[in-house]
Amino acid sequence: MTVEKPRPKRRSDGERSRNAILREATRLATVEGIDGLSISGLADAVGMSKSGLFAHFGSKEELQLATIDAAGSVYNELVVEPALSAPSALTRLRQLAENFVRHLEDDVFPGGCFFASVAAEMDTRPGPVRDRAVEFTQTWSGLLVQAVKEAQAEGEIDASEDPVQLAFELNAYLLLANAQHVATGEPLPLELARRALDRRLAAAAA
Amino acid sequence: MTVEKPRPKRRSDGERSRNAILREATRLATVEGIDGLSISGLADAVGMSKSGLFAHFGSKEELQLATIDAAGSVYNELVVEPALSAPSALTRLRQLAENFVRHLEDDVFPGGCFFASVAAEMDTRPGPVRDRAVEFTQTWSGLLVQAVKEAQAEGEIDASEDPVQLAFELNAYLLLANAQHVATGEPLPLELARRALDRRLAAAAA
Repeated sequence: MTVEKPRPKRRSDGERSRNAILREATRLATVEGIDGLSISGLADAVGMSKSGLFAHFGSKEELQLATIDAAGSVYNELVVEPALSAPSALTRLRQLAENFVRHLEDDVFPGGCFFASVAAEMDTRPGPVRDRAVEFTQTWSGLLVQAVKEAQAEGEIDASEDPVQLAFELNAYLLLANAQHVATGEPLPLELARRALDRRLAAAAA
Repeated sequence: MTVEKPRPKRRSDGERSRNAILREATRLATVEGIDGLSISGLADAVGMSKSGLFAHFGSKEELQLATIDAAGSVYNELVVEPALSAPSALTRLRQLAENFVRHLEDDVFPGGCFFASVAAEMDTRPGPVRDRAVEFTQTWSGLLVQAVKEAQAEGEIDASEDPVQLAFELNAYLLLANAQHVATGEPLPLELARRALDRRLAAAAA
């Protein structure tokens, strides 16, 4: 008696292929721009046919949105999630910032922070691609604000600090570190950001 | 006796036309990207023929470089020059930052800071257009560092501050204000930047 086996390999190949395509797409998008991301351009980059790519993504916009989600997953995995198990909110805040700096240092995306790159490109072009990218940057800001508030509740950040203001300042160091590191390839901006984060958090200590 | 007059009007028309074209180009570049700036696209935007534009700019790259220079002139006129007559280096530093915030508030360019926009777009694309844009952002950083050093020499900023570090932090507030203001259209990021600048300069006072 033969029993037809399920075909996990085939399905898994499909998944792996989609993931591999999207990994390449996130990298390309920080170099060529997410609007420069086309099904034919990506097909060349990953060595697939246009029709093969169309099987995965029905339109350029669908590809762009899937690319943003894929970058979000990378970002969550490298920057956000490792900080979530921190023993205190202040440590979580420090780790979120340091993980961000480290993902720049490690050149995870050739164009630096994926979301800074895509938000800067799309900020004046209304539509779902812009909305999804901006939403991600706002989620990030919200994570920093939330960590500040909890650190205040835990008595580690002074109650007189405005959480939105403090989160803005910390986030600002990260964004400029990103811009200058990508523009120059130098490590100095990353060190300047680290010192600024330390100094600002020391000033905010309860 | 008739004397042939020089023809300043004709020349002036030509100049005005070139300036008008470049003003439109700077605005377009912060929306469509400087790489999205083409002679044919710009010809449509200013209602001229492609051949008319080619008389001004022989190539796309020449147009891009002229657009960067034109944005530099706007920036110098609105942000840098008004600060240069300040009575002290600390006042100059404050005015440079405030003039920058105000040019965002006034929506001088629809995509916010021209140089942040172009640098973010071109940072991974080597060539003279990238170099010119990055050079401008470095000149700006240098102006801030120089003002900090002079304010230290004038005894208004504490000698223990590292000028490069302090300038980095001030510049960071400006860049994030730009990014968030363009993304949301809200005035809040501009106010957060103003408060951050005030707080940081108060902390740095001699």
